[in-house]
Amino acid sequence: MKQEPLKIPQATTKRLPLYYRFIQNFSNAGKKRVSSQELSEAMKIDSATIRRDFSHFGALGKKGYGYDVQHLLAFFRQTLDQDEETNVALIGVGSLGTAFLKYNFHKNHNTRIVVAFDTSATEDGMMLSDIPVFEPSKLEEKIQEYGIELVILTVPSRAAQEVTDRLMTTSVKGILNFTPVRLTVPDSIRVHTIDLSVELQTLIYFIKQDEETFTHNS
Amino acid sequence: MKQEPLKIPQATTKRLPLYYRFIQNFSNAGKKRVSSQELSEAMKIDSATIRRDFSHFGALGKKGYGYDVQHLLAFFRQTLDQDEETNVALIGVGSLGTAFLKYNFHKNHNTRIVVAFDTSATEDGMMLSDIPVFEPSKLEEKIQEYGIELVILTVPSRAAQEVTDRLMTTSVKGILNFTPVRLTVPDSIRVHTIDLSVELQTLIYFIKQDEETFTHNS
Repeated sequence: MKQEPLKIPQATTKRLPLYYRFIQNFSNAGKKRVSSQELSEAMKIDSATIRRDFSHFGALGKKGYGYDVQHLLAFFRQTLDQDEETNVALIGVGSLGTAFLKYNFHKNHNTRIVVAFDTSATEDGMMLSDIPVFEPSKLEEKIQEYGIELVILTVPSRAAQEVTDRLMTTSVKGILNFTPVRLTVPDSIRVHTIDLSVELQTLIYFIKQDEETFTHNS
Repeated sequence: MKQEPLKIPQATTKRLPLYYRFIQNFSNAGKKRVSSQELSEAMKIDSATIRRDFSHFGALGKKGYGYDVQHLLAFFRQTLDQDEETNVALIGVGSLGTAFLKYNFHKNHNTRIVVAFDTSATEDGMMLSDIPVFEPSKLEEKIQEYGIELVILTVPSRAAQEVTDRLMTTSVKGILNFTPVRLTVPDSIRVHTIDLSVELQTLIYFIKQDEETFTHNS
């Protein structure tokens, strides 16, 4: 396996955690090897795409044999730093934030919300779904205390940029942003925005396009 | 404005609802025209990308003038079918489903959850956040009654494919899937999966890559 720094296309990178999940499934099912076709069927991704993605990581498979499951597992675990725990802070415990606290990524033992912040918290903090919740004035102090690099942002839109500005002086390097606000951040912070209205609108647009295609064809 | 069927790249298509949102903001702020640079700053998207995206829709802007806001607004409204209402069904009223019911896309007046389903519903149905919730046995009947084409799927993983199979015989054409299951559907149904663990893992991976880059450079 090549150990050079990897230059992986972004589209491939985004599929890495998904590959890891499914290879874990194959491993848990006791499979020793897996073909790109089997992965394709399980993941609903074109097998040519899978082979092309895997080719970026060097020679991971053998023709007529497929891929060694344990080898893949070790590769993805290392690549995704799955051995390292990531402590996550949740900012904003409204209805969406509450859902994340309850869910708390149980399936990912290495990623966990360990602390949360909300304007409703009492001065000494309170517990929700076994997670300590502090008032916003404690943001910088507690982020340092818990060694947080990643936050999930589920505050109201009007508070989003203000909270983000305060994160700039902390150890936070990534924000999973569920507000519809496009956040301004320095280059040292990564933002990934999931805007549920936009996701819904995009799906509607694709459906309407499908309908037109069907109408034209009929 | 060209009225031919549009051949728009998928990456561009995914940005359409976002463009629409921001052009609405400019319109609401009383702006008559907007430059790609202004849009770029507001949306945090490269202005060259914006100009390239807009070029796919034909001649929407003029050099040295920028884009006419009302013209853009009319164009995106028509393209995104914003004049048409879309009734959405929510399947699975757990913590994430409850968050969606409460939120219910208030900002998008043309998209609304109008009916929900959950195993906890009583035989005659019940109201949650002003939305009727029915038991799963009523799925096909109520989807027809409410004229549903789009569902948001927030059921437990073990129920995801079974529910999806039942949707195949209905009018549903799109599924916004929040379960980690890769759903099997016929070509007539579009699925868009938002897997929160995967989104989080991907962000962590990018952060770790950034860290390595910074370390190598220092």
